[in-house]
Amino acid sequence: MTNRNCSIIETVYNMPELKSCPIETTFRIIGKRWTVLIIREILRGHTQFNRFIENIEGITPKVLTERLRELEHLGIIRRRIVSEYPVRLEYSLTDLGKGFEPVLLSAASFAMKYMPKTVFKDGKPRTPQEILT
Amino acid sequence: MTNRNCSIIETVYNMPELKSCPIETTFRIIGKRWTVLIIREILRGHTQFNRFIENIEGITPKVLTERLRELEHLGIIRRRIVSEYPVRLEYSLTDLGKGFEPVLLSAASFAMKYMPKTVFKDGKPRTPQEILT
Repeated sequence: MTNRNCSIIETVYNMPELKSCPIETTFRIIGKRWTVLIIREILRGHTQFNRFIENIEGITPKVLTERLRELEHLGIIRRRIVSEYPVRLEYSLTDLGKGFEPVLLSAASFAMKYMPKTVFKDGKPRTPQEILT
Repeated sequence: MTNRNCSIIETVYNMPELKSCPIETTFRIIGKRWTVLIIREILRGHTQFNRFIENIEGITPKVLTERLRELEHLGIIRRRIVSEYPVRLEYSLTDLGKGFEPVLLSAASFAMKYMPKTVFKDGKPRTPQEILT
Protein backbone atom coordinates (compact mmCIF):
# COMPACT_ATOMS: atom_id res chain seq x y z
CA MET A 1 0.00 0.00 0.00
CA THR A 2 2.77 2.43 0.90
CA ASN A 3 4.57 1.85 -2.37
CA ARG A 4 1.39 2.05 -4.36
CA ASN A 5 0.41 5.44 -2.90
CA CYS A 6 3.94 6.66 -3.28
CA SER A 7 3.94 5.88 -6.96
CA ILE A 8 0.53 7.54 -7.34
CA ILE A 9 2.01 10.74 -5.91
CA GLU A 10 5.03 10.50 -8.20
CA THR A 11 2.78 9.81 -11.18
CA VAL A 12 0.70 12.89 -10.42
CA TYR A 13 3.79 15.12 -10.35
CA ASN A 14 5.13 13.66 -13.57
CA MET A 15 1.95 14.49 -15.51
CA PRO A 16 2.59 16.91 -18.36
CA GLU A 17 -0.92 18.31 -17.82
CA LEU A 18 -0.13 19.41 -14.26
CA LYS A 19 -0.15 23.17 -13.77
CA SER A 20 -0.15 23.60 -9.97
CA CYS A 21 0.53 21.26 -7.09
CA PRO A 22 -2.84 19.80 -6.01
CA ILE A 23 -1.65 19.22 -2.44
CA GLU A 24 -0.57 22.85 -2.13
CA THR A 25 -3.86 23.97 -3.70
CA THR A 26 -5.88 22.11 -1.07
CA PHE A 27 -3.67 23.19 1.81
CA ARG A 28 -3.88 26.83 0.75
CA ILE A 29 -7.48 26.52 1.97
CA ILE A 30 -7.45 24.04 4.85
CA GLY A 31 -3.90 24.78 5.98
CA LYS A 32 -4.99 28.23 7.09
CA ARG A 33 -5.43 28.34 10.83
CA TRP A 34 -8.96 27.41 12.11
CA THR A 35 -10.38 26.65 8.68
CA VAL A 36 -10.25 22.90 9.04
CA LEU A 37 -11.88 23.09 12.46
CA ILE A 38 -14.79 25.14 11.13
CA ILE A 39 -15.34 22.56 8.38
CA ARG A 40 -15.09 19.83 11.03
CA GLU A 41 -17.83 21.50 13.08
CA ILE A 42 -20.22 21.66 10.13
CA LEU A 43 -19.44 18.03 9.23
CA ARG A 44 -20.31 17.12 12.83
CA GLY A 45 -23.74 18.59 12.23
CA HIS A 46 -23.26 21.95 13.95
CA THR A 47 -24.69 24.93 12.08
CA GLN A 48 -24.47 27.95 14.37
CA PHE A 49 -21.89 30.55 15.24
CA ASN A 50 -22.19 29.94 18.98
CA ARG A 51 -21.67 26.21 18.60
CA PHE A 52 -18.50 26.88 16.59
CA ILE A 53 -17.24 29.22 19.33
CA GLU A 54 -18.00 26.61 22.01
CA ASN A 55 -16.29 23.76 20.20
CA ILE A 56 -13.25 25.43 18.62
CA GLU A 57 -10.92 26.07 21.50
CA GLY A 58 -9.11 29.39 21.31
CA ILE A 59 -10.94 30.99 18.41
CA THR A 60 -12.28 34.52 18.98
CA PRO A 61 -15.62 35.79 17.61
CA LYS A 62 -13.72 38.28 15.44
CA VAL A 63 -11.51 35.64 13.82
CA LEU A 64 -14.42 33.22 13.44
CA THR A 65 -16.40 35.94 11.64
CA GLU A 66 -13.48 36.57 9.28
CA ARG A 67 -12.98 32.89 8.53
CA LEU A 68 -16.68 32.28 7.91
CA ARG A 69 -16.68 35.15 5.41
CA GLU A 70 -13.61 33.80 3.65
CA LEU A 71 -15.12 30.32 3.45
CA GLU A 72 -18.33 31.80 2.07
CA HIS A 73 -16.40 33.76 -0.60
CA LEU A 74 -14.50 30.62 -1.55
CA GLY A 75 -17.81 28.82 -2.06
CA ILE A 76 -17.10 26.30 0.71
CA ILE A 77 -19.89 27.27 3.09
CA ARG A 78 -23.29 28.84 2.68
CA ARG A 79 -25.09 31.15 5.10
CA ARG A 80 -28.84 31.07 5.49
CA ILE A 81 -31.10 33.33 7.56
CA VAL A 82 -33.42 31.02 9.49
CA SER A 83 -35.11 33.67 11.60
CA GLU A 84 -35.25 37.43 11.19
CA TYR A 85 -36.37 38.33 14.67
CA PRO A 86 -34.40 37.41 16.62
CA VAL A 87 -31.81 37.12 13.85
CA ARG A 88 -30.59 33.55 13.51
CA LEU A 89 -28.17 32.34 10.89
CA GLU A 90 -27.31 28.81 9.87
CA TYR A 91 -24.14 27.70 8.13
CA SER A 92 -23.87 24.65 5.89
CA LEU A 93 -21.34 23.16 3.49
CA THR A 94 -21.70 23.54 -0.26
CA ASP A 95 -20.89 20.55 -2.49
CA LEU A 96 -17.33 21.89 -2.71
CA GLY A 97 -17.17 22.08 1.09
CA LYS A 98 -18.48 18.52 1.45
CA GLY A 99 -15.59 17.45 -0.76
CA PHE A 100 -13.25 18.03 2.19
CA GLU A 101 -14.82 15.18 4.16
CA PRO A 102 -12.41 12.45 2.96
CA VAL A 103 -9.46 14.78 3.62
CA LEU A 104 -10.56 15.41 7.20
CA LEU A 105 -11.30 11.74 7.69
CA SER A 106 -7.83 10.73 6.56
CA ALA A 107 -6.34 13.38 8.86
CA ALA A 108 -8.37 11.94 11.75
CA SER A 109 -7.30 8.40 10.83
CA PHE A 110 -3.65 9.44 10.90
CA ALA A 111 -3.74 10.78 14.45
CA MET A 112 -5.94 7.91 15.68
CA LYS A 113 -3.43 5.40 14.34
CA TYR A 114 -0.08 7.10 14.94
CA MET A 115 -0.71 9.43 17.88
CA PRO A 116 -3.19 7.48 20.01
CA LYS A 117 -1.71 8.72 23.29
CA THR A 118 -2.54 12.28 22.31
CA VAL A 119 -5.97 11.43 20.99
CA PHE A 120 -7.42 8.75 23.29
CA LYS A 121 -7.72 8.50 27.07
CA ASP A 122 -6.67 4.84 26.97
CA GLY A 123 -3.90 5.54 24.43
CA LYS A 124 -5.01 2.67 22.16
CA PRO A 125 -4.92 3.17 18.38
CA ARG A 126 -8.22 2.80 16.51
CA THR A 127 -9.52 3.34 13.01
CA PRO A 128 -12.67 5.40 12.39
CA GLN A 129 -14.19 2.29 10.81
CA GLU A 130 -13.61 0.23 13.99
CA ILE A 131 -15.53 2.77 16.03
CA LEU A 132 -18.61 2.39 13.85
CA THR A 133 -18.86 -1.34 14.47
CA MET B 1 -20.63 7.99 0.80
CA THR B 2 -21.02 11.56 2.03
CA ASN B 3 -23.50 10.56 4.69
CA ARG B 4 -21.46 7.60 5.75
CA ASN B 5 -18.30 9.66 6.24
CA CYS B 6 -20.28 12.32 7.99
CA SER B 7 -21.59 9.86 10.51
CA ILE B 8 -18.05 8.47 10.98
CA ILE B 9 -16.85 11.95 11.92
CA GLU B 10 -19.79 12.42 14.30
CA THR B 11 -19.19 9.00 15.80
CA VAL B 12 -15.53 9.81 16.44
CA TYR B 13 -16.45 13.01 18.30
CA ASN B 14 -19.09 11.24 20.37
CA MET B 15 -16.62 8.65 21.68
CA PRO B 16 -16.22 8.80 25.46
CA GLU B 17 -12.58 7.69 25.02
CA LEU B 18 -11.71 10.76 22.95
CA LYS B 19 -9.25 13.11 24.65
CA SER B 20 -8.14 15.45 21.83
CA CYS B 21 -9.46 16.19 18.36
CA PRO B 22 -7.60 13.88 15.95
CA ILE B 23 -8.06 16.27 13.01
CA GLU B 24 -6.56 19.11 15.03
CA THR B 25 -3.72 16.84 16.17
CA THR B 26 -2.78 16.00 12.59
CA PHE B 27 -3.12 19.57 11.37
CA ARG B 28 -0.96 20.87 14.19
CA ILE B 29 1.83 19.15 12.25
CA ILE B 30 0.90 19.39 8.57
CA GLY B 31 -1.07 22.63 8.85
CA LYS B 32 2.15 24.47 9.64
CA ARG B 33 3.40 26.33 6.58
CA TRP B 34 5.75 24.33 4.28
CA THR B 35 5.58 21.12 6.29
CA VAL B 36 3.22 19.33 3.95
CA LEU B 37 5.33 20.32 0.95
CA ILE B 38 8.50 18.90 2.50
CA ILE B 39 6.70 15.61 3.16
CA ARG B 40 5.41 15.73 -0.43
CA GLU B 41 8.96 16.08 -1.75
CA ILE B 42 10.19 13.05 0.16
CA LEU B 43 7.15 11.04 -0.95
CA ARG B 44 8.03 11.98 -4.53
CA GLY B 45 11.40 10.35 -3.99
CA HIS B 46 13.51 13.45 -3.40
CA THR B 47 16.01 13.18 -0.57
CA GLN B 48 18.23 16.25 -0.68
CA PHE B 49 18.11 19.78 0.64
CA ASN B 50 18.79 21.34 -2.77
CA ARG B 51 15.99 19.39 -4.43
CA PHE B 52 13.58 20.60 -1.73
CA ILE B 53 14.69 24.20 -2.34
CA GLU B 54 14.24 23.77 -6.11
CA ASN B 55 10.77 22.26 -5.86
CA ILE B 56 9.18 24.17 -3.00
CA GLU B 57 8.46 27.58 -4.44
CA GLY B 58 9.12 30.43 -2.04
CA ILE B 59 10.85 28.57 0.78
CA THR B 60 14.17 30.01 1.98
CA PRO B 61 17.16 27.89 3.05
CA LYS B 62 16.80 29.25 6.59
CA VAL B 63 13.14 28.26 6.90
CA LEU B 64 13.75 24.89 5.23
CA THR B 65 16.53 24.17 7.73
CA GLU B 66 14.21 25.03 10.63
CA ARG B 67 11.37 22.89 9.30
CA LEU B 68 13.63 19.91 8.64
CA ARG B 69 14.86 20.13 12.23
CA GLU B 70 11.32 20.30 13.57
CA LEU B 71 10.26 17.31 11.47
CA GLU B 72 13.27 15.37 12.69
CA HIS B 73 12.46 16.19 16.33
CA LEU B 74 8.87 15.10 15.78
CA GLY B 75 10.12 11.76 14.46
CA ILE B 76 8.64 12.34 11.01
CA ILE B 77 11.87 12.45 9.02
CA ARG B 78 15.31 11.00 9.48
CA ARG B 79 18.64 12.52 8.40
CA ARG B 80 21.50 10.37 7.20
CA ILE B 81 25.05 11.35 6.31
CA VAL B 82 25.79 9.71 2.95
CA SER B 83 29.17 11.31 2.37
CA GLU B 84 31.52 13.07 4.77
CA TYR B 85 33.68 14.83 2.24
CA PRO B 86 32.07 16.61 0.59
CA VAL B 87 29.32 16.49 3.23
CA ARG B 88 26.11 15.10 1.78
CA LEU B 89 22.96 14.47 3.74
CA GLU B 90 19.90 12.49 2.77
CA TYR B 91 16.44 12.86 4.26
CA SER B 92 13.85 10.11 4.43
CA LEU B 93 10.48 9.52 6.08
CA THR B 94 10.16 7.42 9.22
CA ASP B 95 7.20 5.04 9.54
CA LEU B 96 5.32 7.86 11.25
CA GLY B 97 6.18 10.15 8.33
CA LYS B 98 5.02 7.58 5.79
CA GLY B 99 1.69 7.55 7.61
CA PHE B 100 0.95 10.97 6.09
CA GLU B 101 0.78 9.51 2.57
CA PRO B 102 -2.97 8.82 2.55
CA VAL B 103 -3.61 12.31 3.97
CA LEU B 104 -1.59 13.96 1.19
CA LEU B 105 -3.21 11.74 -1.38
CA SER B 106 -6.71 12.71 -0.26
CA ALA B 107 -5.67 16.38 -0.32
CA ALA B 108 -4.39 15.92 -3.90
CA SER B 109 -7.60 14.13 -4.87
CA PHE B 110 -9.68 16.99 -3.53
CA ALA B 111 -7.98 19.65 -5.67
CA MET B 112 -7.85 17.38 -8.74
CA LYS B 113 -11.60 16.80 -8.49
CA TYR B 114 -12.92 20.15 -7.28
CA MET B 115 -10.36 22.69 -8.50
CA PRO B 116 -9.24 21.24 -11.86
CA LYS B 117 -8.86 24.68 -13.45
CA THR B 118 -6.23 25.58 -10.88
CA VAL B 119 -4.47 22.24 -11.06
CA PHE B 120 -4.54 21.15 -14.71
CA LYS B 121 -3.64 22.93 -17.95
CA ASP B 122 -6.72 21.50 -19.66
CA GLY B 123 -8.93 22.19 -16.62
CA LYS B 124 -10.38 18.66 -16.63
CA PRO B 125 -10.97 16.88 -13.30
CA ARG B 126 -9.13 13.61 -12.74
CA THR B 127 -8.61 11.13 -9.91
CA PRO B 128 -5.08 9.99 -8.98
CA GLN B 129 -6.24 6.44 -9.80
CA GLU B 130 -7.25 7.43 -13.34
CA ILE B 131 -3.77 8.78 -14.00
CA LEU B 132 -2.18 5.44 -13.16
CA THR B 133 -4.21 3.57 -15.78
